[in-house]
Amino acid sequence: MSSTKDIDALIEMMAKLPGLGPRSARRAVLHMIKKRALLMIPLSDTLQNVAATARECLNCGNIGTSDVCDICTSHKRANGEICVVEDVADLWAMERSGVFKGRYHVLGGTLSALDAVGPEELRIPKLMTRIADEHITEVILALNATIDGQTTAHYIAGELETRGVAVTSLAQGVPIGGELDYLDDGTISAALKARKAL
Amino acid sequence: MSSTKDIDALIEMMAKLPGLGPRSARRAVLHMIKKRALLMIPLSDTLQNVAATARECLNCGNIGTSDVCDICTSHKRANGEICVVEDVADLWAMERSGVFKGRYHVLGGTLSALDAVGPEELRIPKLMTRIADEHITEVILALNATIDGQTTAHYIAGELETRGVAVTSLAQGVPIGGELDYLDDGTISAALKARKAL
Repeated sequence: MSSTKDIDALIEMMAKLPGLGPRSARRAVLHMIKKRALLMIPLSDTLQNVAATARECLNCGNIGTSDVCDICTSHKRANGEICVVEDVADLWAMERSGVFKGRYHVLGGTLSALDAVGPEELRIPKLMTRIADEHITEVILALNATIDGQTTAHYIAGELETRGVAVTSLAQGVPIGGELDYLDDGTISAALKARKAL
Repeated sequence: MSSTKDIDALIEMMAKLPGLGPRSARRAVLHMIKKRALLMIPLSDTLQNVAATARECLNCGNIGTSDVCDICTSHKRANGEICVVEDVADLWAMERSGVFKGRYHVLGGTLSALDAVGPEELRIPKLMTRIADEHITEVILALNATIDGQTTAHYIAGELETRGVAVTSLAQGVPIGGELDYLDDGTISAALKARKAL
């Protein structure tokens, strides 16, 4: 490779990002070198800023720039609903839909016997504290429809049984715009079981 | 989106990189925030370094950290062969194969009547100067097998007709490990026309 040390190091780091491999990292680096003033220098500065300021919300686990995130400090969002998600990316996905008006709780993963991930590793004790402290009436489990996600959802639902809160989960079915021919059998089966009168 | 201004700006910039979209940019940013010390801060520093030092080689157009790149200054590479490529990425791909021992000339694109790209925009005059100055005996046209790439190759071959240098191009055929069933008709046809006695 004819590029010198720093350029090679940059390609290697970019290749570590999820979604990028060595080839796309090289393309990205060449693109940035061509757009130095418009992209490369601002990107470097913003990375520095975010590295210095980004932190996990002590309450819900969301990523923001203060100890407690904007959602947790907003009184408008204290409507008694709490949405439990696996990861910050899932929280952001929920927020983009713009429909949910309550607060969130980011578990930071799923229970896993294989990886020795128990409730303590997952911010589940904190969830129990919040349910009492924030007068929660409904816990919405928005965990991924994977085996680990559903195992975690069942565990949390079991823990909440005696707490006097409603426990719900996202509906499963045909995605909007989805074509039956492209859906897997499990989704079709779930959609059929949960069919509704028109 | 619950993330604050800098995080949003970072996602937006990352999404501008080739190969990344909004979704993968968000994943990459969350990954970096989790690996702050190991990835985010070093990446920011290296971006800054490369932005400050990376430049185009005045001779061949390769990207390096000095006015004339390592390949152009190396006497070992002055073997009378020059390999003409469209882009720096193509030069790097040739270098990874490790087979070519001569020098390069990066055109910076292909001729295109539609986009008004003529020979002057493509470092072609500089190629002609180099052929005389560096005592070039063979010009290897390693341009992409696209219509624009092949048009550019034909134009350069025409310009070189009277210069007394050999003009060659990369062989076309079945890629190593390639399966006929997955190849397009043009490649099979080219491979058949260029067939060799075993």
